[in-house]
Amino acid sequence: MDTELFARLRAQQPLVVNYANFVTPQFVANGLNALGASPIMTLAQEEASELMTPANALVLNLGTINASDMPMVLALAKAATKFAKPIILDPVAVGATAFRAAAAKRLLGDYPIAVIRGNASEIAFLAGIKTQAKGIDAGANATSPATLAQRCAERYNCTVVVSGKVDIIAQGHNLATVYNETSLLPAVVGSGDLLSAIIGAYAGIAEDPFDAALLGAVTLGVAGEAAAAHLEATQGGTFASVLLDRLAALDVEQLNTQARYEEARRA
Amino acid sequence: MDTELFARLRAQQPLVVNYANFVTPQFVANGLNALGASPIMTLAQEEASELMTPANALVLNLGTINASDMPMVLALAKAATKFAKPIILDPVAVGATAFRAAAAKRLLGDYPIAVIRGNASEIAFLAGIKTQAKGIDAGANATSPATLAQRCAERYNCTVVVSGKVDIIAQGHNLATVYNETSLLPAVVGSGDLLSAIIGAYAGIAEDPFDAALLGAVTLGVAGEAAAAHLEATQGGTFASVLLDRLAALDVEQLNTQARYEEARRA
Amino acid sequence: MDTELFARLRAQQPLVVNYANFVTPQFVANGLNALGASPIMTLAQEEASELMTPANALVLNLGTINASDMPMVLALAKAATKFAKPIILDPVAVGATAFRAAAAKRLLGDYPIAVIRGNASEIAFLAGIKTQAKGIDAGANATSPATLAQRCAERYNCTVVVSGKVDIIAQGHNLATVYNETSLLPAVVGSGDLLSAIIGAYAGIAEDPFDAALLGAVTLGVAGEAAAAHLEATQGGTFASVLLDRLAALDVEQLNTQARYEEARRA
Repeated sequence: MDTELFARLRAQQPLVVNYANFVTPQFVANGLNALGASPIMTLAQEEASELMTPANALVLNLGTINASDMPMVLALAKAATKFAKPIILDPVAVGATAFRAAAAKRLLGDYPIAVIRGNASEIAFLAGIKTQAKGIDAGANATSPATLAQRCAERYNCTVVVSGKVDIIAQGHNLATVYNETSLLPAVVGSGDLLSAIIGAYAGIAEDPFDAALLGAVTLGVAGEAAAAHLEATQGGTFASVLLDRLAALDVEQLNTQARYEEARRA
Repeated sequence: MDTELFARLRAQQPLVVNYANFVTPQFVANGLNALGASPIMTLAQEEASELMTPANALVLNLGTINASDMPMVLALAKAATKFAKPIILDPVAVGATAFRAAAAKRLLGDYPIAVIRGNASEIAFLAGIKTQAKGIDAGANATSPATLAQRCAERYNCTVVVSGKVDIIAQGHNLATVYNETSLLPAVVGSGDLLSAIIGAYAGIAEDPFDAALLGAVTLGVAGEAAAAHLEATQGGTFASVLLDRLAALDVEQLNTQARYEEARRA
Repeated sequence: MDTELFARLRAQQPLVVNYANFVTPQFVANGLNALGASPIMTLAQEEASELMTPANALVLNLGTINASDMPMVLALAKAATKFAKPIILDPVAVGATAFRAAAAKRLLGDYPIAVIRGNASEIAFLAGIKTQAKGIDAGANATSPATLAQRCAERYNCTVVVSGKVDIIAQGHNLATVYNETSLLPAVVGSGDLLSAIIGAYAGIAEDPFDAALLGAVTLGVAGEAAAAHLEATQGGTFASVLLDRLAALDVEQLNTQARYEEARRA
């Protein structure tokens, strides 16, 4: 794992342009800010190109995607593609409605998505494995998360993160598993959105999206464990604030000593 | 009061579809999540039917209603009606503008609203009793909250909650008063929105919306009192986080022992 | 400095109508609420006139300005002008895109903006001094903040606040510098938005926008210092909640004893 990427993020403060859902934008922006990145949210199609020029990455979150936002989303994706900035796709509840599925598939079909980050249900849907989604979360699936991630990564030729109790990162023949976790992360609405955005921040300065995705999952996991250390399992409200503190307090040494993961790469 | 409804909510995790205002959606989603429900917010008319199919309830919050959202709001209400899912209406600042009034009245005229939840000023306006609204809050009114609630409930043939220092729940000849309260709840923007959403979560699994409304008011009141127990009256910022913790920590015994209410029913 | 203005705000609870960005509306609303003002957010052009009639001030935040919101923004500005309510403009990232610049300049050209509140980069751009903006924040500039503020104030014939480690308030030949500060304020996304809104609340009841801007900067600075007193520099997440507590706990004596500022006025 490339923890020097974390030091570079702190030094470079990558600009992350977000098409955010309207539920969690402040939490995501505060999380990116705490980590050391520079977030900006937009709702204006007219500024897509100007924003993507200095930007390091684009994060597209489909949590509240709608028809009137689509032209802007496509303009952002087009500009990111033109300027060779990595695109991270968060296909929130993609299996729940045809509209979300169409939006995700259009983006995946027309633009070079670097990383897809979703839960098992969302990734299963994109991988073409039928499942049931309920609300913004999703239940277990018969197929292992690693298989879901690998199939989805193969299908869309990108890096895929399946987040859950364990996070899986897949890309071609590379596979990693991140064990850092706390039950308080899923207790906070927007923790998945934040993970996608953090991966975007790293991807904006990384050589390889796989490195960005792995370090992103470790970053949120380590900060989450630190934030949860003195809290009860019911303290999700307090945790959301302390998590931001712990993201800001992170350093390379903490990442190196606290990270718990396995990585299998084939060059 | 049916506190078993709380246990059922924890077990069933009802899916609550929200047309949320853009000010407090994360707080509302976190509150529903902490309680044990499953929230989803949408801005896409196209997915109204698919979301309402698995949903248990629909919560329509008019806090930032606008013309371009109206087709979606109507599509959601229509789908909820078709699938017989209860609709909860939060008529934020309904008396402040003709546009809000028209939106609320159209919904009340065309769809079977199960529960209306508002403050005294909002309910007075809907009940046809002239009053003054200022901002998102409202002042006192000459008419008693119980009378306001009863008149509004009669007019729209539904359950009405007037929330304030004391919460009133009215439905036909049934009337309940919830005394659990803290001055820190009105100090948090969105506590009313959250109450409407909690009532929605209960209504989605209850036989009778009155039970859902009463238990909803007790739930937020008891969690609020627990959250306020060690805080100063000025600590509204801290309270907002601790309230979420306390919602997650609630159990049936706490509800049974801490609830303070009166209930008068006629079968 | 007119700290009695604070006492009047608490007594009068001025109604502040906000065209807010979608990232930080709850934080801004909670901050206004904690201070003692009465916030309302709108997205409906139809209610501009009715909202601005009872309102004390209008705050226009361009953080996520877009074409479909422009008619509403203009309707709000027109109504505020008609009813002689002060308009506060927060030109978020105005130098980053032509669209934002056009929106800000249209507002500045067509309506009597009372106060512009921005960071050094944003104010430099509006003053016609070329600079670089990155994300929602901005770097240092060769021109002093006081000169930027004065030039911008002269150009648009209004009060200008340049916020940063030190806050500068300029209006004609009047100039003030506020030294109250903490590194935790810029760590919170939305602290600038909140400052603009607080200035709006004061402007709604002040004779002179300069008094409102000065007291606004002092208010957030004093509350921020109090909130930061027992926190580490990395605790931006916790700080955001405690800041709201401290805004609610403020009193005139604290403002008088804790304020650190210089003021030079020419009648």
